Amino acid sequence: MSDVDLIGIGLTKFAKHDNKTSRDLLAEALQEAITTVDKGINIRKDIKALFVGYFTPSLYEHQSHYGPLITEWFGLTGIPAFRTESACASSSSALATGYFAVASGVYDIVMICGVEKMTSLDTSGVTDALSIAADDIFELGTGITFPGLFALMAQEYFGKYGGSWEDLQAVTLKNHYNGSLNPKAQFQAEISAIAEKIAIKKGVTFKDELDFLNSKYNPPVAYPLRLFDCSPISDGAAVAFLANSEISNRFTDRPLHIKGIGLSTDTLSIAGRDDLTTSKATLKAAYMAYKMAGITPKDIEIAEVHDCFTINEIILSESLGFFKKGTGLAMAQKGITKIIGDQPINTDGGLKSKGHPVGATGIAMVNELWEQLRGEAGERQVKDNPRIGLTCNVGGSNASSMVFIFERGTN
Amino acid sequence: MSDVDLIGIGLTKFAKHDNKTSRDLLAEALQEAITTVDKGINIRKDIKALFVGYFTPSLYEHQSHYGPLITEWFGLTGIPAFRTESACASSSSALATGYFAVASGVYDIVMICGVEKMTSLDTSGVTDALSIAADDIFELGTGITFPGLFALMAQEYFGKYGGSWEDLQAVTLKNHYNGSLNPKAQFQAEISAIAEKIAIKKGVTFKDELDFLNSKYNPPVAYPLRLFDCSPISDGAAVAFLANSEISNRFTDRPLHIKGIGLSTDTLSIAGRDDLTTSKATLKAAYMAYKMAGITPKDIEIAEVHDCFTINEIILSESLGFFKKGTGLAMAQKGITKIIGDQPINTDGGLKSKGHPVGATGIAMVNELWEQLRGEAGERQVKDNPRIGLTCNVGGSNASSMVFIFERGTN
Repeated sequence: MSDVDLIGIGLTKFAKHDNKTSRDLLAEALQEAITTVDKGINIRKDIKALFVGYFTPSLYEHQSHYGPLITEWFGLTGIPAFRTESACASSSSALATGYFAVASGVYDIVMICGVEKMTSLDTSGVTDALSIAADDIFELGTGITFPGLFALMAQEYFGKYGGSWEDLQAVTLKNHYNGSLNPKAQFQAEISAIAEKIAIKKGVTFKDELDFLNSKYNPPVAYPLRLFDCSPISDGAAVAFLANSEISNRFTDRPLHIKGIGLSTDTLSIAGRDDLTTSKATLKAAYMAYKMAGITPKDIEIAEVHDCFTINEIILSESLGFFKKGTGLAMAQKGITKIIGDQPINTDGGLKSKGHPVGATGIAMVNELWEQLRGEAGERQVKDNPRIGLTCNVGGSNASSMVFIFERGTN
Repeated sequence: MSDVDLIGIGLTKFAKHDNKTSRDLLAEALQEAITTVDKGINIRKDIKALFVGYFTPSLYEHQSHYGPLITEWFGLTGIPAFRTESACASSSSALATGYFAVASGVYDIVMICGVEKMTSLDTSGVTDALSIAADDIFELGTGITFPGLFALMAQEYFGKYGGSWEDLQAVTLKNHYNGSLNPKAQFQAEISAIAEKIAIKKGVTFKDELDFLNSKYNPPVAYPLRLFDCSPISDGAAVAFLANSEISNRFTDRPLHIKGIGLSTDTLSIAGRDDLTTSKATLKAAYMAYKMAGITPKDIEIAEVHDCFTINEIILSESLGFFKKGTGLAMAQKGITKIIGDQPINTDGGLKSKGHPVGATGIAMVNELWEQLRGEAGERQVKDNPRIGLTCNVGGSNASSMVFIFERGTN
């Protein structure tokens, strides 16, 4: 089995991109990705296959068969192209299948893409499009959608381990702070800044950030979760290049080495699970990734963790082994997961503040590791030159979990 | 790179399955697949990952995130699961990505699934669902759908190389004859039998089969193509098992060895092509597959070729190198591609008569090779124990092409 390196990666700003199609967004991400390859890349000559994650093009753009669409758009017609779909982990599944292809020796260099153009539908349309990541027969038939599914997890967590919605706001506050430092983030504003803006506009006052988050300006979505507990509707794209480690020095002296990979599933329907406060798929995926990498959770210096809802950052931070069961919430409150904390999580603002264009999210997480592990994260840079990082990208209500461990390499 | 073997495969009947969901169909295919593994398989113990091709679950069943749905349904929750989508080549892309995963050494045994539950929509709905395999902006915007795209190919073929719609009926007649011998086929009837039935029902007479095919009972769809030039709307599922060749003898002494694989793309929109009578993606895919297998087209004893429309069997039979450019139609008329001919094509009835549940088609093609190369094809059996066969499964208007070469092996 060949080793595999990440040799370049690019990302659009996550936002509502009114006048751009998904293909426009991918072209933008590609242009940036090309500039990140230290010694340059000629995509027409070098790229042997393309893997693209896009969760629901059929509903957002009345489009499917997205592989050859993008090879044509990129001037790469002729190379093989595959679309992969694993709900919100769609681009991680593109990364995984692209990894298999390079590890097998079939291709030496491949391109991984992720994209979602969500704002072409209204909120009701997007809610419906997202809902098909759950089980249509056994879940959607009851009327539940994703905020409701994660609200059940939050209720069970608080019931089992204590803690409250107020405690959970540590995640909201942290991720909005981190997002305020990220020029690619959809919401580049701390909660205090958002509160101040609303206070001025509405002629009201808030005692503090929590007073704002507890007000009618942060309306309930599904008890106990409120608006600012939910990741937003976003447009965005990301593109990455993988190369066989034996030849990656043609492109860079500072690749990120894929040191571990773990992939697992849980029941699609949460009715099949005996504990909503643990992601069993993540437990298994993380175990496999750590084992392959020959490390333990303690070795992870920075992590990107799928905070589609605030509660999920807590649940996953425990399932990944960073914190013991039931202690993740307290750790977030103590500031351990801040950029300056001992276990930094979602330094880019996370899905919560950076945005969550579903199919792009997995590669966007990897983009943050690229910047952090190479010391290029600017104001968000984690101290002491982190060398090893992890991404955990899940699909649906954690029914798919994909974990990757990257290590800064030298060629 | 590890070698990869096919160790078992199963297929539902292709039909309108009114009271079954796609998951029911896959369970049925799985049950058959298990029985084909000569020495038995324990899927809970043996299967390490699942790859499933389903083109448009979002529109047919308001469902996506189909990987963990099926691992749950099969009692395999926990193993990694991926959905791949390449339009009508969706299950061939599952086969390709599953192949990469086994060839890389990451997994030793994987399950490949393909399924489509199309009849939940009416004809207009299915036409719309299929249309998203073409370019929404540059093709569908003009009002064209798939019969129109392939009709343009037929017109260009007749214009360039001569021949007529009447000549093309050699494909219709052959594939319906072959389908009449296939218990899994949607239409198990020769054209003569269908003509006779209609003659009795309507109180009319037909001179011969061509007289029937030229009548109002075979209405025009897109000139020059008529109803019987088009594959039908179908429900169906297929399941296959791949294993690392080093351990496949645990399961069978008679695997099919994957000897060659070739994957390529063309422009998604036909406007980007300079010749509609050649599938450039298939030319490239076939070249790669032959090269990897170390053989030439002359070595292929039996082939499954994507006849979504009759004209495409002709075009692809040339692009695959079986016949020189412009001679494929004459070869079909001469009977060369019949079961008893020198170059048998679509012995199972092809998409035309067997049916075309889009996501299941690629694996269904492989199923026919399994039966033929193992000498288990009954009345359809090609003479002289064929040893090497090929599948060519395309997506959309040949924008994706995936070619696999199988050889009967011994363990």
